[in-house]
Amino acid sequence: MQVAVCGPQHCTEEDATHAYQVGQLLARAGAVVLCGGGTGVMAAAAAGARAEHGLVIGILPNDTAEDACPDLSAVIVTNLGQARNAVIVWSADAVIAIGGSWGTLSEIALAKRRGGIPVITLGGWRILAHNGSPLPDPPTPAADPQHAVTLALTTARNSSTR
Amino acid sequence: MQVAVCGPQHCTEEDATHAYQVGQLLARAGAVVLCGGGTGVMAAAAAGARAEHGLVIGILPNDTAEDACPDLSAVIVTNLGQARNAVIVWSADAVIAIGGSWGTLSEIALAKRRGGIPVITLGGWRILAHNGSPLPDPPTPAADPQHAVTLALTTARNSSTR
Amino acid sequence: MQVAVCGPQHCTEEDATHAYQVGQLLARAGAVVLCGGGTGVMAAAAAGARAEHGLVIGILPNDTAEDACPDLSAVIVTNLGQARNAVIVWSADAVIAIGGSWGTLSEIALAKRRGGIPVITLGGWRILAHNGSPLPDPPTPAADPQHAVTLALTTARNSSTR
Amino acid sequence: MQVAVCGPQHCTEEDATHAYQVGQLLARAGAVVLCGGGTGVMAAAAAGARAEHGLVIGILPNDTAEDACPDLSAVIVTNLGQARNAVIVWSADAVIAIGGSWGTLSEIALAKRRGGIPVITLGGWRILAHNGSPLPDPPTPAADPQHAVTLALTTARNSSTR
Repeated sequence: MQVAVCGPQHCTEEDATHAYQVGQLLARAGAVVLCGGGTGVMAAAAAGARAEHGLVIGILPNDTAEDACPDLSAVIVTNLGQARNAVIVWSADAVIAIGGSWGTLSEIALAKRRGGIPVITLGGWRILAHNGSPLPDPPTPAADPQHAVTLALTTARNSSTR
Repeated sequence: MQVAVCGPQHCTEEDATHAYQVGQLLARAGAVVLCGGGTGVMAAAAAGARAEHGLVIGILPNDTAEDACPDLSAVIVTNLGQARNAVIVWSADAVIAIGGSWGTLSEIALAKRRGGIPVITLGGWRILAHNGSPLPDPPTPAADPQHAVTLALTTARNSSTR
Repeated sequence: MQVAVCGPQHCTEEDATHAYQVGQLLARAGAVVLCGGGTGVMAAAAAGARAEHGLVIGILPNDTAEDACPDLSAVIVTNLGQARNAVIVWSADAVIAIGGSWGTLSEIALAKRRGGIPVITLGGWRILAHNGSPLPDPPTPAADPQHAVTLALTTARNSSTR
Repeated sequence: MQVAVCGPQHCTEEDATHAYQVGQLLARAGAVVLCGGGTGVMAAAAAGARAEHGLVIGILPNDTAEDACPDLSAVIVTNLGQARNAVIVWSADAVIAIGGSWGTLSEIALAKRRGGIPVITLGGWRILAHNGSPLPDPPTPAADPQHAVTLALTTARNSSTR
């Protein structure tokens, strides 16, 4: 099971706390944690997973690992810029998005575009249809980190064919 | 000047009409039209641009051009899947998004993540901050195709350094 | 018909002359010319095609078109680094490689890995099997620019299904 | 330290034995093994590394991990086709290429195009300049798996800045 944790590089303190806890809980459950390998939510998720001796892989946008956050077990230097967001999403059996930013929104949208995997949100932005009504099949909001991880692992186990 | 026209492959009739008109207006203004080379909004924008003898380039997701829409001057076979959305956005001096879908939302989000270029919407989904308030620096809604093209060309000319 | 012209950014004068002539001949034949949009062979092929009023598309490695060579009808800003070499190759109905460099060799190898399209060389490096014997199905060497273009257009017309 | 092991999906028995031994030796030295996650050399390197409880990451070309070889600690589903070869190469502190194929040659060429990391070959194809003379700064041939790993680890430690 591989779970991507996505979120802003410039995040709130609450987002960082949530990301750390999500990383911890995923590692304790034996899931591989994927993240973008940067600051903010990405670094916090990596730190949480590493604290529980989990496997954490940073999927980086640039052509070097120089700016990678610490606490990564391995780095993938995609040199794809923000197109690496698609690599994160396609490598994941479930996506947990924490907080709101344009990059995070692109990952949520790509994950829904892919389909077939749970996309869980913890805080962050809302997306509405043109007339202000809810979308069909929106991301699933979670109440707290434990809820997010439970949703991700339970529904990924059901939806993933790997 | 290169303008990307983005939108759903399964779009409403109104979206298709808008896309055709946007393609026409961009071609008349001498802009190169970029699109995803698929059906729906993409095909309509290409048809409109071609009707005015414009240059239209389809930036395709798959490893072949077999499913490309007609009316393209040239095709780029990226074989990147939906990561090609980033290529569309980074190649554009302005982005016009018509209608709502997860793929379209990913292009809007990637274009805002890139920054520095106008992102114009004609219909489609709305994005709100967590508390329901508007985002800072959201995409710019246009009233109709002429308005969308005017906004794109005017602000692209000011913001682009190419 | 879309033909990629590949070659070193730092090329010999003979390579540049060959690339200019190949660009001219392709444009006269009505083929779209694809190139990497940089200096050397890429710039020369674009200049030759533009001199004959051809359509030339530069498929660039970086996140901006600032360093693009002149004479391009349109630019694709892939932001993929050298992974853009695969985009050039997958978009082409035939590949003509002029001169030798590691980047050029990667394009030849990717084109042969793809298979199904002619890969023509004009000068450049040689590849031998481990025991020094020739490879099965190597690239096709051309004697001069006219020969390269004739080989590309004739065999692409036969091999391409687009 | 991250070392990429590249080679044909359809390889000789000797290549597979070499790849298994290289995987073992890298894992024993504590290096992360990167590979393309397919059959042949890729699967053999993963099996060797896993036998020594190493960390092995498969960087896959398709949009699913269905065809991934066993023995991978984690999979990156790039959905980039053969452009994923660039991701493998840019993620590596050293590259060991075992055996010859067009895909393998593209990885050697991309690694030399990148520069700054050792590129070690064990068997495989030879590349000559146009006049049949050797290239400047060619890949470094190794005599056997132990030699390949020693060359990779020693020179990567010197050349890598990570």
